[in-house]
Amino acid sequence: MKFFNPDIFGFIAAALTTVAFLPQVIKTWLTKRGDDVSMTMLILFITGLLFWIIYAVQTNSKPVLIANIITFILNMIILILKLIYEDKNSNKKPNQVII
Amino acid sequence: MKFFNPDIFGFIAAALTTVAFLPQVIKTWLTKRGDDVSMTMLILFITGLLFWIIYAVQTNSKPVLIANIITFILNMIILILKLIYEDKNSNKKPNQVII
Repeated sequence: MKFFNPDIFGFIAAALTTVAFLPQVIKTWLTKRGDDVSMTMLILFITGLLFWIIYAVQTNSKPVLIANIITFILNMIILILKLIYEDKNSNKKPNQVII
Repeated sequence: MKFFNPDIFGFIAAALTTVAFLPQVIKTWLTKRGDDVSMTMLILFITGLLFWIIYAVQTNSKPVLIANIITFILNMIILILKLIYEDKNSNKKPNQVII
């Protein structure tokens, strides 16, 4: 079935999977907590985004480049906020699971 | 600079941004908590992944299809675990920020 140009689905997909991380930035900032967000996930995901950025540069794909740069920035903010608040709250929860 | 086949970077990127969500599944399951994970992020991200799956089917891109199906499954598990544990802990934290 090809009722629509597949690019339309690609653009909607890229927009959603990019903008999705903005609510996480806002939530972490408002609650001053990111303990339940996995540090390993953030590190693997951010590293993966760096590889997507390299791939986009090498293949001259502007949409892939722009989407991944925005996603990279949003996830770096989440990681930094998590580290800041974890440090401030560290005396309250000594038995935290670190993953 | 094109020292390497760009596809290598694409494969590493896809593997990392897919496998990244496994530690979040494990963390949410072990801690029985997903309160700090944004519900809006999960819904937007999962919806975006559905559009990537449609895009992959329409463009016959198997790597995009496989990566997004795995990412979709992992994020659905995170969403379901979050909902299960949030419900069980709901009487403990009445002033939670819902984002």
